[in-house]
Amino acid sequence: MTKKAYILDSTLRDGAQGEGISFSIEDKINIVKALDRLGISFIEAGNPGSNPKDIEFFKRVRDVKLENSVLVAFGSTRRKNIRPDEDIMLASLLSTETSTVVIFGKSWDLHVTDVLGTTLDENLLMIEDTVSYLRRNGREVIYDAEHFFDGYKANPEYALQTLKAACRGGAKCIVLCDTNGGCFPSEIKEITAEVAKVIDVEIGIHCHNDTGCAVANSIAAVEAGARHIQGTFLGFGERCGNANLSTIIPNLQLKLGYSCIPDSNMSQLTTTARYIAEVSNIPIVGYEPYVGNSAFAHKAGMHADGVTKVSQSFEHVDPAVVGNSRRFLISEMAGRTTLMQKLQNICPDLTRDSPQTKEITDILKKLEFEGYQFDAAETSFELVVRRQLQQYKPFFELVHFKIIGEKPAVVGYNSSATIKIRVGDKEEITAAEGDGPVHALDSALRKALYVFYPELRKSRLSDYKVRVLNPQAATAAKVRVLIESTDGEDVWSTVGVSTDIIEASWIALVDSIEYKLLKERQKQKKLATGGN
Amino acid sequence: MTKKAYILDSTLRDGAQGEGISFSIEDKINIVKALDRLGISFIEAGNPGSNPKDIEFFKRVRDVKLENSVLVAFGSTRRKNIRPDEDIMLASLLSTETSTVVIFGKSWDLHVTDVLGTTLDENLLMIEDTVSYLRRNGREVIYDAEHFFDGYKANPEYALQTLKAACRGGAKCIVLCDTNGGCFPSEIKEITAEVAKVIDVEIGIHCHNDTGCAVANSIAAVEAGARHIQGTFLGFGERCGNANLSTIIPNLQLKLGYSCIPDSNMSQLTTTARYIAEVSNIPIVGYEPYVGNSAFAHKAGMHADGVTKVSQSFEHVDPAVVGNSRRFLISEMAGRTTLMQKLQNICPDLTRDSPQTKEITDILKKLEFEGYQFDAAETSFELVVRRQLQQYKPFFELVHFKIIGEKPAVVGYNSSATIKIRVGDKEEITAAEGDGPVHALDSALRKALYVFYPELRKSRLSDYKVRVLNPQAATAAKVRVLIESTDGEDVWSTVGVSTDIIEASWIALVDSIEYKLLKERQKQKKLATGGN
Repeated sequence: MTKKAYILDSTLRDGAQGEGISFSIEDKINIVKALDRLGISFIEAGNPGSNPKDIEFFKRVRDVKLENSVLVAFGSTRRKNIRPDEDIMLASLLSTETSTVVIFGKSWDLHVTDVLGTTLDENLLMIEDTVSYLRRNGREVIYDAEHFFDGYKANPEYALQTLKAACRGGAKCIVLCDTNGGCFPSEIKEITAEVAKVIDVEIGIHCHNDTGCAVANSIAAVEAGARHIQGTFLGFGERCGNANLSTIIPNLQLKLGYSCIPDSNMSQLTTTARYIAEVSNIPIVGYEPYVGNSAFAHKAGMHADGVTKVSQSFEHVDPAVVGNSRRFLISEMAGRTTLMQKLQNICPDLTRDSPQTKEITDILKKLEFEGYQFDAAETSFELVVRRQLQQYKPFFELVHFKIIGEKPAVVGYNSSATIKIRVGDKEEITAAEGDGPVHALDSALRKALYVFYPELRKSRLSDYKVRVLNPQAATAAKVRVLIESTDGEDVWSTVGVSTDIIEASWIALVDSIEYKLLKERQKQKKLATGGN
Repeated sequence: MTKKAYILDSTLRDGAQGEGISFSIEDKINIVKALDRLGISFIEAGNPGSNPKDIEFFKRVRDVKLENSVLVAFGSTRRKNIRPDEDIMLASLLSTETSTVVIFGKSWDLHVTDVLGTTLDENLLMIEDTVSYLRRNGREVIYDAEHFFDGYKANPEYALQTLKAACRGGAKCIVLCDTNGGCFPSEIKEITAEVAKVIDVEIGIHCHNDTGCAVANSIAAVEAGARHIQGTFLGFGERCGNANLSTIIPNLQLKLGYSCIPDSNMSQLTTTARYIAEVSNIPIVGYEPYVGNSAFAHKAGMHADGVTKVSQSFEHVDPAVVGNSRRFLISEMAGRTTLMQKLQNICPDLTRDSPQTKEITDILKKLEFEGYQFDAAETSFELVVRRQLQQYKPFFELVHFKIIGEKPAVVGYNSSATIKIRVGDKEEITAAEGDGPVHALDSALRKALYVFYPELRKSRLSDYKVRVLNPQAATAAKVRVLIESTDGEDVWSTVGVSTDIIEASWIALVDSIEYKLLKERQKQKKLATGGN
């Protein structure tokens, strides 16, 4: 029988405390949507009391309809010696209007006296008061027992009293935190089992990775009875990071018989991880379990040979199950099944055995080898396929462009671009200025195209992302540019890769425009034939 | 009482199977020396049977005098149905002349029949024969039981028989391998304890990281009686890598009472890790336990405040013990305590009430509002402060630069830059080409500066990152450029923000160069005054 385990993702709260991570409100909303699609139980999305930007986020996120996830806000117990209703942090927590909140409090006597500067008794009251106040205000409460394991080792009796105070307040789940990340699985297992003997409500676990054991510690807690697991999707977090959920979820679900997300979503694990990495602008290291690009890559000849004879000989799980792939055999794209589905969406006649399928697969492999990644750029994927199937002719041709950037600028903008394009037998040359070379080029290209395709006036770029692919090559590194465009109705994404950021941007820009024009033609055709 | 644990580092053998890793003979010798200095017991340096380059390496390494480490060569049991003295792989193993060798053999019945294609009995003979042959030739033998845990789960009796065969042959240590990396600590502990009941010689452990548990699995085996631990210093290895020794060593030695390396060498751990990373040309991820750049970095204001009051409140060990250091990150979450500590590092006279403190705080706030982020760019932070305190004058002045990018390119590179700078009353004008505008600009700037500051030739960019800050403005969006530079000794990071990617890159480039020149001046001053 499958047992249920509840995952709480804190990428947007604890993860945001990782070095080099800084989310915009738009980034946060995109990550919320991705985690919801995957089927994560709880998304801890911010700490409105310590970060005023989060208040704005919680306002904006109300318009996002979630299918699977419960959004939660995070805060601490009330300050010492005041009533909960006098605490502005709790007021801002309530103002987020999330149905569930996470509250953290102190379990370690040292922290109570030396950091908080209050008495052990007042700390117990702070915990109970805060939880019961939030319950009275209609909230479900998950209680995070900060430093629980260190606290338990120092003073087990007091540490357990803090948990009981949270239970008396009405917490529905008590989460044991290894805040300093200094524990090992054997002690986590033993102490969690002790807690399970005296606490009646659901037990959770929250680990940090300072001994490199955060994943194993989370598993050990589940073995001892925990059913709620906190972490961050890619292990982002303060110091050495939090427990990595993209490892824990398949560990629990594929190997230990727990259900964390719907089975049918497991094959989205790798795509989701890569999408979140892309939004966060933090690359996933290749050797990351399950979702890394090398996670199922076989280099030693003997391993490659062994795995071909008996796949389980050098693979602990089937890579396709998590949406990753074995590297020396198939394309790096999502598995072959996913690929076929995508191809048939574009051209229903294609089968696994069509010669075009092989041609397209070969081109995709080559592009992926060059650094293209289509997970976040389905439109470019579609154009690659349609070009190969000769389903359309380019709408324009570049004759030449030239960009000039200078400092100090002679007048006005730092950058300008001149461009000459050809449509049929007509040429158009024009120029534009801009904030930077890509902006100038985009403006000049559109200006030239409006002459032939006035319908382009409705479309514009809505997002622009740059990712350096081989940072060690520094300014001569390859870059991948992702562009999102919109015409008010649709949103589409395109990608370009080059050592030259202007060239990479140009490739993605051209795809964006070609797609819009292609869509318009298809619409006109349908209208003309009365089709639908 | 301290118990001894023997570490075997396989960076040069199993680590070399990691994606993107390729060692020259010189690299290998440098890594051997570094591991020896640290006091690693065994260095597994190559597989002469499968990699002919390794034969040359073992010849060269004979001239290297090791103080602490035993060098070992790695190979497999003899081929089926021949005598050991007929096996060329074993002959090449003996030709390395190492006093100790590691031999791996099959423990999993499935592998014996389906991959090796032989009988279960012949496999037992292959193991015993090979070990006793090597013993007769004067070698100590460490026996690696490949796939031991999977084999034990499938057929425990046969798996144990393979270990007994190695013992009969005369192996001095039996190493249990989780070759597929699919296990969890609880099963590793249980199975290792079962083995310890029936095997008299020293037990070892060799883990891979496919469930993210390699470190925890190694610790679990030690808890069950293993005293020999194999891994790679930075976790390099096939697929998700091997057990990371730079985490395991401090875990065992600082927390569990084992002696792995001399206590006096523990403070060399971080330097050794960074040196091996440099030789391997693989960056250490910041969040790596103990040795990563962020391993003791505090971002949330509350954590910074806590750790200042009671260091153990957010640090599981003292960073100085492993040669790392505590860092406070500057961010919207950081409190005033963090900022003051950073300012006092640069200028010890500053206090919370100094007028300059307020001025600096105002400037930082303004810069952060514009999109600057200093947690990953400490050097730019330092330069902002030093400029404000008027502690230095810029080393050069930009007169003008102009960048041209075009497509198609007239000849060669797509981009070129001309630049004119002024140093004192001298001007220098020059030009360069590049892959993209920033590369061309960087090259031209350095070329102009070499005339005045030849010491800059030693420094180069080692990382380049671009982040789009307000993607909705698309190509006119603000970008933040982060640059990491190195001169072989130090690594420093600088940041620039602008709507123009060239301008943002320029700001970060200039900071990188100014910092290097400032550092050189300070060094010369110290030398001149005989200071230290």
